[in-house]
Amino acid sequence: MAKETLLLRNVRPQGGETVDVLIRDGHIARIAADQHAAPGAQSIDGENAILLPGLVEAHTHLDKTLLGMGWRPHQAGPTLKDKIDTERHLRREWDIDPHRQSMRQALLSLGHGSTAIRSHVDMDTDCGMEGFEGVSRTREALAGLIDIQIVAFPQSGLLVRPGTLELMDQALRDGADVVGGLDPCSMDRDPKGHLDMVFELAERYGKPVDIHLHEPGELGAFSIELITERCRAHAMQGRVTISHAFCLGMPDRARALSLIDDLAEAHIHIATVATPFRPVPLADDLRAAGVTLCAGSDGIRDCWGPYGNADMLERAMHLGLRNNFRRDEDVEHALWCCTYGGAEVMNLENYGLTEGCRADLVLVGAETPAHAVVTHPPRKLVLKGGRIVAENGCALRDAP
Amino acid sequence: MAKETLLLRNVRPQGGETVDVLIRDGHIARIAADQHAAPGAQSIDGENAILLPGLVEAHTHLDKTLLGMGWRPHQAGPTLKDKIDTERHLRREWDIDPHRQSMRQALLSLGHGSTAIRSHVDMDTDCGMEGFEGVSRTREALAGLIDIQIVAFPQSGLLVRPGTLELMDQALRDGADVVGGLDPCSMDRDPKGHLDMVFELAERYGKPVDIHLHEPGELGAFSIELITERCRAHAMQGRVTISHAFCLGMPDRARALSLIDDLAEAHIHIATVATPFRPVPLADDLRAAGVTLCAGSDGIRDCWGPYGNADMLERAMHLGLRNNFRRDEDVEHALWCCTYGGAEVMNLENYGLTEGCRADLVLVGAETPAHAVVTHPPRKLVLKGGRIVAENGCALRDAP
Repeated sequence: MAKETLLLRNVRPQGGETVDVLIRDGHIARIAADQHAAPGAQSIDGENAILLPGLVEAHTHLDKTLLGMGWRPHQAGPTLKDKIDTERHLRREWDIDPHRQSMRQALLSLGHGSTAIRSHVDMDTDCGMEGFEGVSRTREALAGLIDIQIVAFPQSGLLVRPGTLELMDQALRDGADVVGGLDPCSMDRDPKGHLDMVFELAERYGKPVDIHLHEPGELGAFSIELITERCRAHAMQGRVTISHAFCLGMPDRARALSLIDDLAEAHIHIATVATPFRPVPLADDLRAAGVTLCAGSDGIRDCWGPYGNADMLERAMHLGLRNNFRRDEDVEHALWCCTYGGAEVMNLENYGLTEGCRADLVLVGAETPAHAVVTHPPRKLVLKGGRIVAENGCALRDAP
Repeated sequence: MAKETLLLRNVRPQGGETVDVLIRDGHIARIAADQHAAPGAQSIDGENAILLPGLVEAHTHLDKTLLGMGWRPHQAGPTLKDKIDTERHLRREWDIDPHRQSMRQALLSLGHGSTAIRSHVDMDTDCGMEGFEGVSRTREALAGLIDIQIVAFPQSGLLVRPGTLELMDQALRDGADVVGGLDPCSMDRDPKGHLDMVFELAERYGKPVDIHLHEPGELGAFSIELITERCRAHAMQGRVTISHAFCLGMPDRARALSLIDDLAEAHIHIATVATPFRPVPLADDLRAAGVTLCAGSDGIRDCWGPYGNADMLERAMHLGLRNNFRRDEDVEHALWCCTYGGAEVMNLENYGLTEGCRADLVLVGAETPAHAVVTHPPRKLVLKGGRIVAENGCALRDAP
């Protein structure tokens, strides 16, 4: 009994008043001032730190990070296809083991307070199911520490690479959580064929959809129209996410806002990285229309680029900077995207900071939530299902 | 003798081969492998860390940070004028003491390895010389720890606020290093009048010029033309900097590149923050034309916005992200802007990593310079003129 009870004293949920939070059987049992720990129960003094729900890494690629493999200078050329082809080649040459690498990145995330990750995982006719199997092993190894959703992701194309559909089908039978897709026009050269296939898989396995859409301007807008049509036709409202959706940052504001209204009506979500060097969907446009925005690190230190550290509080800062957010309520919205927004997109159950919620929690030493975002100091404590899983910025479990 | 000699063993200048660096009388005396410390001389093991020249914070506002004053929610409205007016008002209400605040920010910078700072300092008919006097005291108090250049900066306008010229004149007589300016069209409503005044002051006092230019598109382009004309007329080639110069990121690439060629010909420098939410001058365009680009934090946690931490290695990362730099040589160029680029703009003497250079040095634990930029870990050691002034990310001198 005592082991399953934890009293977190002197913490400020979402930066509010100081309270004590009683955690029992993995959930928040009671939030009130001046509680007393049961005899023998563990009690921790939060020293007035801010209590947040576990951060949510809603868009990344666990299978392909180079973390812990020594510095590898970036080699790929400038186009998307250069990056995809270079990566497929280097995956073999450098022995980028998906299990080992996903363990490293997931535990780094956990140290920064992410308690849930949605990871796209490559499947193609070169690597077959290796990525899926590696990340599945990581998901199993870290069960209870961090929730990992696997997106079956046709990174090298679906129709243009026969055999990929069968791999995705296999992955979904073997436990992939989400059906992925990628640039139906520019990559797969057949938007109708690509999207019909993605939504058919989703219907067959009863899984949500998350589609990478890098296509710019009107090309991307066209793909968004096709996705929205299929979301409605398959009655998948609330279960479709478009990742990146750069086209929503197009100069033609009226066109972008009209697309965003359609997305809101179809209850389609957007995932962003807040890329600073190209147009991105603006958080205010999405918020005004009622479209849920979540955020992710995207690739971290991989064959696509050298940046990234898996810190979703720092990602909230990037999101704030990219959207010119300065006021507290706006910076807090950026934080919302990296917590509640991600939880909504991942459909996490009992997520939040109220009694009854699952005790996936992060303690941050900061004055206000906005202060936590702009300074993103090392997390003091991370709890997953009521258990302490990270302290002072580091997961308690060692990575391989 | 021993006190003035320091042997820095096992360091890798700019990430190259491991060597020992002998520092004598504040300068790099000898770079060679396997040196031996003189009897009684101090010797430090760098443990193969990368040795960089002191980072250069080439554009900031030391007088107005709110660091250490508790979290203050952002209050200003969206326009530039809103921010300027709000700040002038809050400066009194919140007692933003320029000396105390500039000490805090300068020492934070030093902890992150910046050994030189160019700070614009507000002067207007409300605050008079208070900012200048406060930052001048800081410059004096930190002499030998960090070099501070003061730009006499008419933040609230020059012609539109009679009396400001006299304050700038006074500041230049009293030791301001650089003549500042601000948006000659949009702020001062008289571009010819404003720029004539700025260049006349520069000529009278023999000082360089650094002009804030937020003006977008063709308005900014016009101001750049006027600045370039005056740079040539006053023979100030190499001594004029334009800060921000957002207009150089205008969609009309041909026009922007033509302006950049003119800047190169007039040897005018650009300072950037790599703002992610608006057009900025692209580092590659400037590099190709031969225009020196330096970088800065701009305002840090002030009435203009809540972001910033004074870390110029992290700024190099922002610059890399903003410019979509992925290859090592490109990320290294971003670092160059935050070191050598800044040193060129500030005209720092004996700057660099060769024998005879002043021993303003930073030790960073990273595999390569690009790795140092993307991870920007706490600096192991910072030397100023051969003296240890910061360790493990913190200046040895306490801030007020």
